[in-house]
Amino acid sequence: MATVKLLTDAEVAAIPTARAVFDDIRATRKSDFVNNFWRGLANDPVLLKRTWEDVKAVMVGEGALDPLVREMIYIAVSTANGCQYCVHSHTAAARARGMSDAQYGELLAVIGLAGKTNHLVTAMQIPADPEFQVKS
Amino acid sequence: MATVKLLTDAEVAAIPTARAVFDDIRATRKSDFVNNFWRGLANDPVLLKRTWEDVKAVMVGEGALDPLVREMIYIAVSTANGCQYCVHSHTAAARARGMSDAQYGELLAVIGLAGKTNHLVTAMQIPADPEFQVKS
Amino acid sequence: MATVKLLTDAEVAAIPTARAVFDDIRATRKSDFVNNFWRGLANDPVLLKRTWEDVKAVMVGEGALDPLVREMIYIAVSTANGCQYCVHSHTAAARARGMSDAQYGELLAVIGLAGKTNHLVTAMQIPADPEFQVKS
Amino acid sequence: MATVKLLTDAEVAAIPTARAVFDDIRATRKSDFVNNFWRGLANDPVLLKRTWEDVKAVMVGEGALDPLVREMIYIAVSTANGCQYCVHSHTAAARARGMSDAQYGELLAVIGLAGKTNHLVTAMQIPADPEFQVKS
Amino acid sequence: MATVKLLTDAEVAAIPTARAVFDDIRATRKSDFVNNFWRGLANDPVLLKRTWEDVKAVMVGEGALDPLVREMIYIAVSTANGCQYCVHSHTAAARARGMSDAQYGELLAVIGLAGKTNHLVTAMQIPADPEFQVKS
Amino acid sequence: MATVKLLTDAEVAAIPTARAVFDDIRATRKSDFVNNFWRGLANDPVLLKRTWEDVKAVMVGEGALDPLVREMIYIAVSTANGCQYCVHSHTAAARARGMSDAQYGELLAVIGLAGKTNHLVTAMQIPADPEFQVKS
Repeated sequence: MATVKLLTDAEVAAIPTARAVFDDIRATRKSDFVNNFWRGLANDPVLLKRTWEDVKAVMVGEGALDPLVREMIYIAVSTANGCQYCVHSHTAAARARGMSDAQYGELLAVIGLAGKTNHLVTAMQIPADPEFQVKS
Repeated sequence: MATVKLLTDAEVAAIPTARAVFDDIRATRKSDFVNNFWRGLANDPVLLKRTWEDVKAVMVGEGALDPLVREMIYIAVSTANGCQYCVHSHTAAARARGMSDAQYGELLAVIGLAGKTNHLVTAMQIPADPEFQVKS
Repeated sequence: MATVKLLTDAEVAAIPTARAVFDDIRATRKSDFVNNFWRGLANDPVLLKRTWEDVKAVMVGEGALDPLVREMIYIAVSTANGCQYCVHSHTAAARARGMSDAQYGELLAVIGLAGKTNHLVTAMQIPADPEFQVKS
Repeated sequence: MATVKLLTDAEVAAIPTARAVFDDIRATRKSDFVNNFWRGLANDPVLLKRTWEDVKAVMVGEGALDPLVREMIYIAVSTANGCQYCVHSHTAAARARGMSDAQYGELLAVIGLAGKTNHLVTAMQIPADPEFQVKS
Repeated sequence: MATVKLLTDAEVAAIPTARAVFDDIRATRKSDFVNNFWRGLANDPVLLKRTWEDVKAVMVGEGALDPLVREMIYIAVSTANGCQYCVHSHTAAARARGMSDAQYGELLAVIGLAGKTNHLVTAMQIPADPEFQVKS
Repeated sequence: MATVKLLTDAEVAAIPTARAVFDDIRATRKSDFVNNFWRGLANDPVLLKRTWEDVKAVMVGEGALDPLVREMIYIAVSTANGCQYCVHSHTAAARARGMSDAQYGELLAVIGLAGKTNHLVTAMQIPADPEFQVKS
């Protein structure tokens, strides 16, 4: 259960701004499927539009990082933040972009290791080495 | 200031297990520099040894994921967990492995976007779409 | 499923301290409904009593902040902490106190934006500007 | 120390996109002061521009929520996320928007209480009451 | 639903490394029951093996801390990290190791209190007292 | 730097409610030292009083859990929440209550391991085993 209504296609169709975003999601992804996140955001068409523009700008298309790498970074952040839905949706997205079982296993291994050393470092309150400093 | 003493090379040299780990860190990384994290862990040589073995197994050498990609995933987890030292050390490591400014900019953009949508999803308590389900 | 039994009214009635708290919750809220959080806490009547006194002192009655504003702050913290139950219960409470759709949309927008900039700041390890300093 | 160089006004002036954002920050806030967050982001002018547009759209100007309330929600999220810089910058912003000591005391009280009950709820894994459900 | 298949005993039996770990889990715990965490990890036998070795080294057998105390510390971390499964599994483990209702009540009280003061401290950005400093 | 003024003894002496709390802290702890957390809270004497009463009730005196165990649980929560000050203050308190190096090493090992498995579990979204269920 969500704290907002998840709008159906019919309900979205009645809100011009939301409908335009849904059309663009479908065109960009070349798929008719629009997942629940967007159906929840559609209750606030302005927030929906701004969020989709962000996602489209950052996650879609060519860039300095491979799209699959971007999805794996997204999974890493979502895991550390404990966002269940986001873990599910971006793991599905990474698989759709070709993530192999071996890549997924390594992703899990890095995430688990970072979780461990993050906790050890914080418990010991290790001060940053001067060697890490950015030259200005 | 740390909650533990950061052991000097002389102090580590007096603890055989710790010294062996420090030697391996230096040999593996082909550098004399050993950062503070290991100097804090050296107070408990067993924990030091097990942690280094983990880091060496996961982060060093060839794998299904490029070493630079692994460092960027590490930065992502460390950021979401708010581990300042880890952010510094792994950003330095990613740069040492060749992370370009453009790659770093995209890494930041993905981390920021994930932070945003993680919060939106959790605030709306969006339920996972059945389409994300793993086939068994 | 919870890690504790959620006590029924009959079970609570058999524990004098817990019953008195439940009576006060009902009288204060002018409603017979007592939500699951209190039914879990009732297993430890001392913790139940102290927690209810805290909630009553902070969230009920007049103050420097409007009760609805306090509920929205509660939602913000609960979202960042990933507490699903708390997000649900305080979103319901905010709506009961008159939160409009427009106010909720802005609340989500601020929470999402803070999630984004929190992550960007932590990833870049931005140092506090001296201008933020409190005068002593 | 940051993981990026904090650009000076002179360095920003050499990057047209960044300079335009800095000009707009100054014009919007009617102040010459540009805080470190933007100086870090200026290394990636596209991310700078998109982030400022977000902040301007959500935090500046009239809306359904009072600007001070928006700042207090921002403080709440930043606290739960452990973002030190963000806590400092938005507490300063809230004070600049007139937050009284009494309001700040209540804000702290709600944040602390939410921190407590969030942990209690998660430790007990309390299931959501059906009464919280949104009608569809 | 998980992001990975939870392997059955039959599927695990076909993977020698995984089968050896499952055999050791059963022998160590003197129980035929192997919980879902290990069935998920079994998809990556190397990660499974390394994780079990860690758990066995840290959580099983005599040590400076009582096994029940170690389980309660595990619950504390898992709660603050919002890991639902871990809260469930380690609360069950603590009960199996004899945690009384009174001990559990105090554990919850400490976790809740820490949640509260952690948030208050972070909101006020309290600097560490020099008295806390470790002598070197 | 804090977001609030850290009140000196002279300033606290001028606020009767705050002075009474400081007197009780000193009497309870049998020490003249009052750490910065209370000096920050003293700006809001009501919040100061309620918080101290909580800490005194939960952390001081005999109970079902040894006072040292309670301090170690506090460290665990504070670490996972990334509260630097709290990690420092409660590590100092645990040492003052006799925590040995071996106990501290095991505490760190459990915290680090929990950090690792919490992340692995969340990344794989492992569902709770029915065997963990509390009997009602």
